[in-house]
Amino acid sequence: MIDDLIERMLRGDRRATARLITLVENDEEKAREIISKIFPRTGRARIIGITGPPGAGKSTLLDKLIKVVREEDQVVGVIAIDPTSPFTGGALLGDRIRMQRHSTDPGVFIRSMATRGSLGGLAKATNDAIKVLDAYGCDVIFVETVGVGQIEVDIVKTADTVVLVTVPGLGDDVQAIKAGLMEIADVFVINKADKEGADATYFELNLMLDLEKERWEKRGWRPPIVETVATTMKGIRELWDAIKDHQKFLKESGEIERKRRFRAEEEIKAIVSGKIARAIESRLGEEEVSNLIRGVVKREIDPYSAADLILEKTLGVKP
Amino acid sequence: MIDDLIERMLRGDRRATARLITLVENDEEKAREIISKIFPRTGRARIIGITGPPGAGKSTLLDKLIKVVREEDQVVGVIAIDPTSPFTGGALLGDRIRMQRHSTDPGVFIRSMATRGSLGGLAKATNDAIKVLDAYGCDVIFVETVGVGQIEVDIVKTADTVVLVTVPGLGDDVQAIKAGLMEIADVFVINKADKEGADATYFELNLMLDLEKERWEKRGWRPPIVETVATTMKGIRELWDAIKDHQKFLKESGEIERKRRFRAEEEIKAIVSGKIARAIESRLGEEEVSNLIRGVVKREIDPYSAADLILEKTLGVKP
Repeated sequence: MIDDLIERMLRGDRRATARLITLVENDEEKAREIISKIFPRTGRARIIGITGPPGAGKSTLLDKLIKVVREEDQVVGVIAIDPTSPFTGGALLGDRIRMQRHSTDPGVFIRSMATRGSLGGLAKATNDAIKVLDAYGCDVIFVETVGVGQIEVDIVKTADTVVLVTVPGLGDDVQAIKAGLMEIADVFVINKADKEGADATYFELNLMLDLEKERWEKRGWRPPIVETVATTMKGIRELWDAIKDHQKFLKESGEIERKRRFRAEEEIKAIVSGKIARAIESRLGEEEVSNLIRGVVKREIDPYSAADLILEKTLGVKP
Repeated sequence: MIDDLIERMLRGDRRATARLITLVENDEEKAREIISKIFPRTGRARIIGITGPPGAGKSTLLDKLIKVVREEDQVVGVIAIDPTSPFTGGALLGDRIRMQRHSTDPGVFIRSMATRGSLGGLAKATNDAIKVLDAYGCDVIFVETVGVGQIEVDIVKTADTVVLVTVPGLGDDVQAIKAGLMEIADVFVINKADKEGADATYFELNLMLDLEKERWEKRGWRPPIVETVATTMKGIRELWDAIKDHQKFLKESGEIERKRRFRAEEEIKAIVSGKIARAIESRLGEEEVSNLIRGVVKREIDPYSAADLILEKTLGVKP
């Protein structure tokens, strides 16, 4: 069944591709089989992370960016990490609808990720979905996350190029988040640049980059700041040019190698955590677990000792 | 040294308490020793999670809420999960400064968490810090997170009472986040309720609760909606009353037991993941790891097989 699906995907069948992504997302055994089979055909796509605080207009921006990339006849994949993931299994309305207009374009493949559950689950599912889209033939894969949570930021960090989208006049904690994301950004976007305060935001970002001058000079890449008004297409072509410039820099400087090693490392880590979580679950009886939990609640055993017992029983790991 | 710190903490020494939190956050060995020693003295504090999208005014709200709780002479602890954690090690300005006014009040203990790194790190550090504050004598411990990331939401879910803060007129993806958080909220707050659109937000939330009627009736608790204007103290007392009502419900319905079991389970899980990550790291040579990563980058070995090799070599776990 899987061989058949892969063959159909390689011939450009979208439904087979969608099915393969669902399989890697939900079925550990099949994920393994699929990834090892398609693995030699991956590694070609450029992976662009798009992140920023909620309300920055990332989805509209991405919608317009896809339009520009499609004019160059490149095949585009989009993986949108759904912020509602831990609960509803993905109930986004406005955002996804905005991108739906591309759904009849055979050169655009949009997928929303809403994996919840065990540690490493979201990161692993995203990595695997990227591989499927890469093997399918996507030239460019956009990974969109809300840049606030730790896991979500870890995911976007593994992209070749990280685009950080911000908007003028956000509140205090959004500013803090922006500051926290500064270090991973390769390209800055000030979206809604026709709004009041855009100049101040530009000035502020530029100043932050000036303060980090030494670091950029050493690395050989100073992140450009692109001003956009996604709703009117203003600045979107400039943004795509900036992304392409960064891709060129990655190749010429050899930094692409470092990025790929980092991505492989994170990928292996995510698989390892998932495997261990499952190994523990399958080797420990439900009653044993609930006895241990009851003991902790009653203060008869502390959580560290409970963890030791679990590790010794399931994996033979001594404290 | 640790015995001395614990003794001083139990006598109400704040500096010793701060030091103990730093130790549980950064030193695995000492965390274990500290937690097992103070564990019998924990379990008394009520844990209140405060979450919501960036820009909802959570910190100002919490600042005012502390004021009300202090009027009842209760000792308050605050653990603020810092959204910038993965990068800067915590560089929040406005938010924390707002709460600084309580820093001279010996009955208020505020701590910012900025743990990064291995899986389970943030959750484990938060759990351990809660225990220290609990043993120190806090009656109420507030845990504040930005309710967007998966880990951050998982942390707040383990609180006794979860307060979800929202504001009128937020954008699309913020609405989606709010929808995703609906299921874990015990109390809803519409902050900045003097802003345009507050009535519409109230109406909308109320409608969502009506749609879930069956679930609330079965559980015996319909989350109240409290309108606040944190800057003018409007609604803050009502919010504290709503939280106390929920605490009463937890006790009377016996749901507090279920909550405590859930928290113990999540706690054990966080410790287990941390221990495994460290076990793997210590048993695998750096060269071996980088050879495997190189193999994956070169497409000589797929990441699943690399993960198998690591697990077999370090923990003896067979594929």
